[in-house]
This record gives sequence, C-alpha cells and structure tokens, in this order.
Amino acid sequence: MNAYDRTPVTVLGLGSMGAAVAGAFLDAGHPTTVWNRTAAKAAPLVERGAIQAATVAEAVAASPLTISVLTTFEDTRAALEPAGAALAGRALVTLNSGAPEGARRTAEWAAGHGARFLAGAIKNVPAAVGAPDTLLYYGGDKGVFADHEATLRVLGGDTVHLGEEPDLAALYEMSVGATLLPALVGFFHGAAGLRARGLEARSMVRFSVKWLEMIASILPVLAEQIDAGDHGDAFSSVNLFLAGADEEREFSRELGLDDAWMAPLHDLLRRAAEAGYGEHNISALTEVIKPKAA
Amino acid sequence: MNAYDRTPVTVLGLGSMGAAVAGAFLDAGHPTTVWNRTAAKAAPLVERGAIQAATVAEAVAASPLTISVLTTFEDTRAALEPAGAALAGRALVTLNSGAPEGARRTAEWAAGHGARFLAGAIKNVPAAVGAPDTLLYYGGDKGVFADHEATLRVLGGDTVHLGEEPDLAALYEMSVGATLLPALVGFFHGAAGLRARGLEARSMVRFSVKWLEMIASILPVLAEQIDAGDHGDAFSSVNLFLAGADEEREFSRELGLDDAWMAPLHDLLRRAAEAGYGEHNISALTEVIKPKAA
Repeated sequence: MNAYDRTPVTVLGLGSMGAAVAGAFLDAGHPTTVWNRTAAKAAPLVERGAIQAATVAEAVAASPLTISVLTTFEDTRAALEPAGAALAGRALVTLNSGAPEGARRTAEWAAGHGARFLAGAIKNVPAAVGAPDTLLYYGGDKGVFADHEATLRVLGGDTVHLGEEPDLAALYEMSVGATLLPALVGFFHGAAGLRARGLEARSMVRFSVKWLEMIASILPVLAEQIDAGDHGDAFSSVNLFLAGADEEREFSRELGLDDAWMAPLHDLLRRAAEAGYGEHNISALTEVIKPKAA
Repeated sequence: MNAYDRTPVTVLGLGSMGAAVAGAFLDAGHPTTVWNRTAAKAAPLVERGAIQAATVAEAVAASPLTISVLTTFEDTRAALEPAGAALAGRALVTLNSGAPEGARRTAEWAAGHGARFLAGAIKNVPAAVGAPDTLLYYGGDKGVFADHEATLRVLGGDTVHLGEEPDLAALYEMSVGATLLPALVGFFHGAAGLRARGLEARSMVRFSVKWLEMIASILPVLAEQIDAGDHGDAFSSVNLFLAGADEEREFSRELGLDDAWMAPLHDLLRRAAEAGYGEHNISALTEVIKPKAA
C-alpha cells in the first residue's frame, strides 16, 4: 500500500497533541495537510512530508476528513469560522477537551455548515498517540465513524464509537478524567511528605503504581454498587475512611504539609455518614455527589 | 515439608484483613494461633486448623512471631498491654494503618517490653493477601525481617524491608495511600455524571482503568521533576489544568453534581500559578503543598 491508497487528512492545531496526531498520520502514509495559527510550528512536520496550508479554508479543502486538535470547542469554532464554506459535505472530527455542552454547540455549528461531525477524545498523553493500546472514543455521526474508522484507528488501536449523541465523548472524557487532578494531588502530597523526611519521591513510584493497580481492580465492584444504588456490602466503609481521615491530618501536621485540599474530601465522608451511610461501602459517596432530587 | 518445619505464628485481630492473614498462614501450613476481642470471629479459622487463644498473653506466648492486624497503633498497644511479659524476646510485627508517630511510639513501647519490633503495611485488599504480586513493606528491626522473611512472604510475594526506622512503613503507607480517597472521589464524581445522563457507571470502568494506567505511566517523570525541584519541562502545565478547571465546573453545573470537593484542588492550581508556576509542569503543585521554609 502506498500513500495513494490512504485517505488524505487535515490536522488543525499543532500543539503537542496535534503534532503527535499529524505525525502518526504521516508515519502511516496518509497525505497530511496541517495548519496552525503560529505557522512556524508546522516546520518539523513539513520536513517529514506534511503539506502546510496557508489558511484554514485551504486546509479544510485539502482533505475529505479534518481533525481539529485545538484546545477547546470554542477555539475550534473560532478557528474554523473562515472555512465555513469548505466544510460542506466534509467530515469534521474534534479531539479536544471540554464539557458536553461545548460538543453539542459545535455539532450544531458543524451541521449549520453542512459538515458531518464526530467529537472525540484521546484518553492518553501525546507520546501514546498511534500505539495499539491507546484509547480514543467518539460520539456523533455513525457514518463518519464507519467511513473513516481505519484512518481514525491510526491514532490508537482502542478506538470506540460511543453512540450518535455528539457530546458522548465529552461526557466520558470529563467523567473518566475527573480522577486525574485529585489522583495527582494525592501523589504530590505523598511525595512532599517523603521529601520532608529527606527521602526521594522516586522511591515511592513503584509502590504508587501498584496502588493505582489496586484502585483499578476495585472499580468494577464500586461501579456495580453505584449502578445498583446499594452500597451495603462494605469492604471499605465510609467510617473506615473517616478513621483514616484523622490519620491523614496527623500525617500532614507531623510533616508540615498543606492539606487544605483534603478537607472537603473528609467533609464528603462526614456528610455520607450523616446521611446514614457510615457502615456502607465508600461508593456511597456517590449519593452525596449526585444531583439532588428536585 | 510439613507444619513442623514452619514457624508458629500468632495473629491478633480477625477483621477482614486479620482473617485473611491468618488464613494465608494456615494455607501455607504454619501452626497458627489466633486471638480476637470478639472470640466468635475465630470460629471459621479454628475450623481450618487455627488454635484459638483464650487471652492475648496466651496468644503471644504460643509463637516466636506475633502479627497484630488491629485497626490502629493505639488499638495494638491497648490490646497487647496484658501480654507485656510474654513479649520479651519475641518478635512483634504490626500490620495496621496509622501515622508515622504512632509507629514510633509503638516501637518504644515494644522495646520497653523487650520485644523486637517491625511495623508493616499491606498495600492491598484482603482478597489479595497471599498472592505472588501483593506488596507489603516493613520498617524496623532488620534481624526480625531476616529471621522471618520467608514467613512474612507468605502474605505477599512482593515483601520489602524499607529500613531500620520503625516508622518507615507508616510513612510510605500514608504517602502512597494519599492517592486513594481523592482518586475514588474523582471516579464517583464521574459515575454520578454518567448516571445523571441515564448511563451506567459500569460503562466507564474499562476507560477509567486505562486512565489510571496512563496516570501510573507518568509518575516516574513527575517524581523526577519533584526530586529535582525543577518543573520547567511542562508536558501538562498548571495553566492547562487551570483551563480544565473551568470545564470541570461547567460539567458539574450542567449535570447538577456537587463539586464542593474540587474547589480547593482548583485553588491549589491558582496558588501555584500565582507563585510563578503557571507554565511549569503540574508536578509544581508539590511546591505549594510542601512545608514552608521557617
């Protein structure tokens, strides 16, 4: 197979993720057109064979499939505004973060320009783009996914269509992604604790990796309890975590760490206990977080 | 090999973790004496061959090695007080949670009774006790570890002596463990979001597992930056997370989720940006958490 058999692709936005996306298409032999507001960023990709478009309209016109890797949905719509006419009949795929509402608004905007639209998300770092195990999910026009699945799969072997609603990837992106900042802050807190004792953060890494594996291993049971709305089978009760909260405060005080970020997590535990979930499993915190019945 | 070749072991505390510990010793053919404040809890272990001690002093006297799996260091000292004389010359190992100070106090207390002391922690759930990959770490008397390593390894193949200081396992336990509650709350928040849209939490599990793997994959680089005190090589900058914080608030508002627990995490981001780390990597949050120079 040579480049003539591969779907031409346009990539908008050449930040670290956009550059990785364009690079993966080049590596896979797709004729790849790139555009970036700061044109100089395209140079390394042009060296690898990418065609640099002078304008966003020219970029969109170059390929049946345009993939936007700008930062937000707002950025995407703003950048694509001058390319409105070129979009008619073409496929537009977004790979950016953002709340579901932004995805819906962008779907309407794309429909208004006659484009077929798919909103996706890459659940990994730029270095993982193109790997067989890398996850990308999409919501929106099933036909776009069917027509371009092989091309989209160039970006990661675990490529999934979640459904026809254009905000599904954003919904899952935000839902799954909600673990990132808190998990990292927990790691930083522990690292600061070790360093306050003259130990290195790196000495914790292999233990933390195992700990994340343990957390991953209990998610199926937690999800079942959440879906059933029944947290009665407590392998780690809210009260057990409440006792742990005292130890966490003692640990931070002993080592002089700023644990302001932990207080509202401990408050969630107290609120769950007050609501009668003390001896229920920790998954019962979901009942405190979920929307209040009107 | 038969039971006569195995070190006799005493297990104090038969909660879910203590019962798993005693069960693992029984499975491995160790003569196993058990004690629990509520004696009835010992019945299933006695059926499997355990010897039930009537008092804690009798329990300690039965074996050269006593493993306490009570909830806290305070519980351990209180339960063992009547066994003070029996402890002399024997090895005492704790497997409970607690801050480093509690481990140091228990080490002093054990030394006062002439016991050799090792404070450990199991970094996994009861069901994982005895598995080849299960991690346990210990701090304290190196001789106890050397004498009983093969016996301790019955509880998990990844058994580590961190050093002679008796609070090291507690220190790592708290440092590594600091990720658990925030990571789970992030998962519950996402699950509540999906359910608010009529989707099931279980539909997210396989994506969340991959996401935790991604988080694990970046810990080595984050730890290096933390140890170097240099967060300049930003693959995910504080400002990028600050932009994401707006999206997170929008997501929670759209779906009606209670996101009070997120506010101080976002506040950490703002404080890091104010301290000049906006374009630095997210690992720079450690600089905000660490002890303030006096």
